[in-house]
Amino acid sequence: MEGEKADKGIKFKKSENFSEWYTDVIIRSEFVDYSSVSGMMVLRPDSYFLWEQIMNVTDRLLKENGVTNTAFPILIPERLLQKEAKHIEHFKAEVAWVTHGGDSELEERLAIRPTSETIMYESVAKWVRSWRDLPMKLNQWNSVVRWEFKHPTPFLRTREFHWNEGHSIYATEEETIRERDVILGIYEHVLKDYLALPCIVGRKTEQEKFAGGVASYSIEQLMPDGWAIQGPDWHFDGQNFAKVFNIEFLDKDGKKALAWQSTYAISTRVLGALIATHGDDRGLVIPPMMSRIQVVVVPIYKTDNRDKVIKAAMVVASEIGKKSRVHLDDRDDVSPGWKFNEWELKGVPLRIEIGERDINEGKVVAARRDTLEKTDIKIDAVGKESQKLLKNIQKSMYKRAVNLMKSMRSTAYSYASMKSALEVKKGFVLAPWCGSDECENKIKEETGAKITNMPLDQQNKLKGNCIYCGKQAKHMANFAKSY
Amino acid sequence: MEGEKADKGIKFKKSENFSEWYTDVIIRSEFVDYSSVSGMMVLRPDSYFLWEQIMNVTDRLLKENGVTNTAFPILIPERLLQKEAKHIEHFKAEVAWVTHGGDSELEERLAIRPTSETIMYESVAKWVRSWRDLPMKLNQWNSVVRWEFKHPTPFLRTREFHWNEGHSIYATEEETIRERDVILGIYEHVLKDYLALPCIVGRKTEQEKFAGGVASYSIEQLMPDGWAIQGPDWHFDGQNFAKVFNIEFLDKDGKKALAWQSTYAISTRVLGALIATHGDDRGLVIPPMMSRIQVVVVPIYKTDNRDKVIKAAMVVASEIGKKSRVHLDDRDDVSPGWKFNEWELKGVPLRIEIGERDINEGKVVAARRDTLEKTDIKIDAVGKESQKLLKNIQKSMYKRAVNLMKSMRSTAYSYASMKSALEVKKGFVLAPWCGSDECENKIKEETGAKITNMPLDQQNKLKGNCIYCGKQAKHMANFAKSY
Repeated sequence: MEGEKADKGIKFKKSENFSEWYTDVIIRSEFVDYSSVSGMMVLRPDSYFLWEQIMNVTDRLLKENGVTNTAFPILIPERLLQKEAKHIEHFKAEVAWVTHGGDSELEERLAIRPTSETIMYESVAKWVRSWRDLPMKLNQWNSVVRWEFKHPTPFLRTREFHWNEGHSIYATEEETIRERDVILGIYEHVLKDYLALPCIVGRKTEQEKFAGGVASYSIEQLMPDGWAIQGPDWHFDGQNFAKVFNIEFLDKDGKKALAWQSTYAISTRVLGALIATHGDDRGLVIPPMMSRIQVVVVPIYKTDNRDKVIKAAMVVASEIGKKSRVHLDDRDDVSPGWKFNEWELKGVPLRIEIGERDINEGKVVAARRDTLEKTDIKIDAVGKESQKLLKNIQKSMYKRAVNLMKSMRSTAYSYASMKSALEVKKGFVLAPWCGSDECENKIKEETGAKITNMPLDQQNKLKGNCIYCGKQAKHMANFAKSY
Repeated sequence: MEGEKADKGIKFKKSENFSEWYTDVIIRSEFVDYSSVSGMMVLRPDSYFLWEQIMNVTDRLLKENGVTNTAFPILIPERLLQKEAKHIEHFKAEVAWVTHGGDSELEERLAIRPTSETIMYESVAKWVRSWRDLPMKLNQWNSVVRWEFKHPTPFLRTREFHWNEGHSIYATEEETIRERDVILGIYEHVLKDYLALPCIVGRKTEQEKFAGGVASYSIEQLMPDGWAIQGPDWHFDGQNFAKVFNIEFLDKDGKKALAWQSTYAISTRVLGALIATHGDDRGLVIPPMMSRIQVVVVPIYKTDNRDKVIKAAMVVASEIGKKSRVHLDDRDDVSPGWKFNEWELKGVPLRIEIGERDINEGKVVAARRDTLEKTDIKIDAVGKESQKLLKNIQKSMYKRAVNLMKSMRSTAYSYASMKSALEVKKGFVLAPWCGSDECENKIKEETGAKITNMPLDQQNKLKGNCIYCGKQAKHMANFAKSY
């Protein structure tokens, strides 16, 4: 038993060696696994359940907003992918090419979709004829392949990832732009209220925007090592793709007009931020809203009182199960302590322990995964109290993450203080920037920090001169080292 | 307007030219579309919604049965795919091969999954260690690619299709086999009660079984041209893959044992059967349980009474919307007649018409899509009555399909009567068969009919000698021409 226990133990401390800790914990907890395809991973049941939760809530909100789901082919002909110059320029280095069907060489190479703009918009051009067909809000949930050559990290950089790709077509620019806050609002809601992750929302710079679009907006998360990671995004495509793919319609006056478009996505990458933000040296910590098992009941018994304890544990589990996803761990061949370690490793938010003495005292012990606190709760109230605890855990996990984020954010009005903030506080430094590619690149070169995004609300924040060149600043920008 | 209307009209009659009707109706109704990848189609919102409904109900039932979802890589290394000889033998002619990542040639070709046994079982072999890890009931919802060279037909034969692939690993043969009726029961429920499709359940012959498995069981549907189409299936894999992939575990006695496995799937192909079975010369007919729009409300008005009628229609739609998925078609620029045609083409199960005279009489007109019958219903009871009608439509669509199926089934005890049944009644002929490949092949060669499957309950049915060779029959078998 000791051997098994040791085998499950995490070998690294999060605070000492974050990146080793990260991969160690997600493999050992049976959350994901490597596969025999380099750079591609397996989402095991616990992690895929999280992704399903994200899909379910996001999908419901998108549908309430008039979005309809579709499925376009997984393969895209090379000539189609090449239609938008900047778009192919960005993606061509990382396209996986299909060249053969069975033994036959294909006449034209086909790309596994790195993203589906080109194949979707070719169809959309056929479908959109009149203003009556608009807006057309299409979406798909699928996986895409991008043949990254950098070192892969589960969730953060993999050659296949899962996402939604929303593609909207509007009659006017105003309507398109109005969509931005709706979509980013949905994503923010999912991240904050389900994944317990704070969000930094803002606009990407010209150099960092989506290839082929006009403007990009992102939600950035912060990893505990102080590095930023880009989460969901929304892109304003203007009429760029409409021009190339000829997406025209007859407007209300019977005149030909060019459509306006947007694109947006949330991906499995957010699960990387979730693990990194909430996990600790004992393993994963999954927010209650997201966890496949929300409460695990662990009976504590010996041979002579087994029946009595198991019976009581079953009643407790069934009571909790009325409102929560519960699991009764009644395995006889591992000890309670072993079970505690295992469920802590897997990050189940709440553990209920019940032994004979507890039963006699009419109580159970509730152990929170987030704080590791233990409290007694009355058996009679176990359903209600565990519900309350789960809500509490969800809330306080978010609060803790917000505080962590706050402790790693600063504002700087000089290059020296920005560099020192990056050293000391790590994380995000908000600083005035002149808007030039040159300053952006120089700062990145010299400090390793890039502009992740620029806050949407600039009016109340813009102050000072560009920290690099000293010229008039155009934007306040969030600088951070970034995955 | 007339021009538009004509454009929407279906050019073929279902009874006269089924296959032209089939593709015409699913394109014109905007259900699916062709894409620029030959053999791959686009699932537009109405068809994808149907697939989502199938996924939702099936997934819920699978989860109740202890199945957990996962996501394995989309690509499979060639060496892995080759591990099971019969398996690769079957699939190699239709594998889409990825040979390049960006500009780099890969060291080893990667197949886009035609099915995921090989990549999944490699992981499973690592995960399964003890009897405590079993059963392991894994599933994924994804799409697969099989590079068919035959003429593609939307849903029935395409180079990409969507499905679930369930893969279970058990400790014993008995448990594995017990799963069969659970899974086939779930699929039958989905087909009958949601898609309104009757099912012929049975075992596949040795020649028709899944490549690499021990025994296959299928649910067959009947197309209106009398051809069978295979629907969902369940495969008993025995220990074949376990041997090849080394899926071993320590049993309760601490001894090494080899695992037992099964595989099962339902695919978008069933949508082909749904369209073919229920559609008519006016277009699609979608069963109420499956339709994205269940009730469409069409107001009938002129300029001078528009406001009054629209207002009443909104009240009606809101009342119906409390229980059903409703759409109010308040477009001003197309006539009610045009709208009727369009919604009939799209197969919306129930249409509510409301004009000024109806309002004055306190009623609306309800038009059923399946029978095209019109009845008056009281405005006060429009919610309840439309609910009732939808249930009624669902039921009678299934009944009609059952009757159609019955009219195309027969039993034959001689080769002559079988051939005549195939001529006259088309559809399925149940006949005694000796069990030899030779007779099976000869019959197929001479009549075009293959053995789709053999009823599970043989005891009460087996009678007579093999219709081809006259020897003792071993099975009653369903013969049919098959897609």
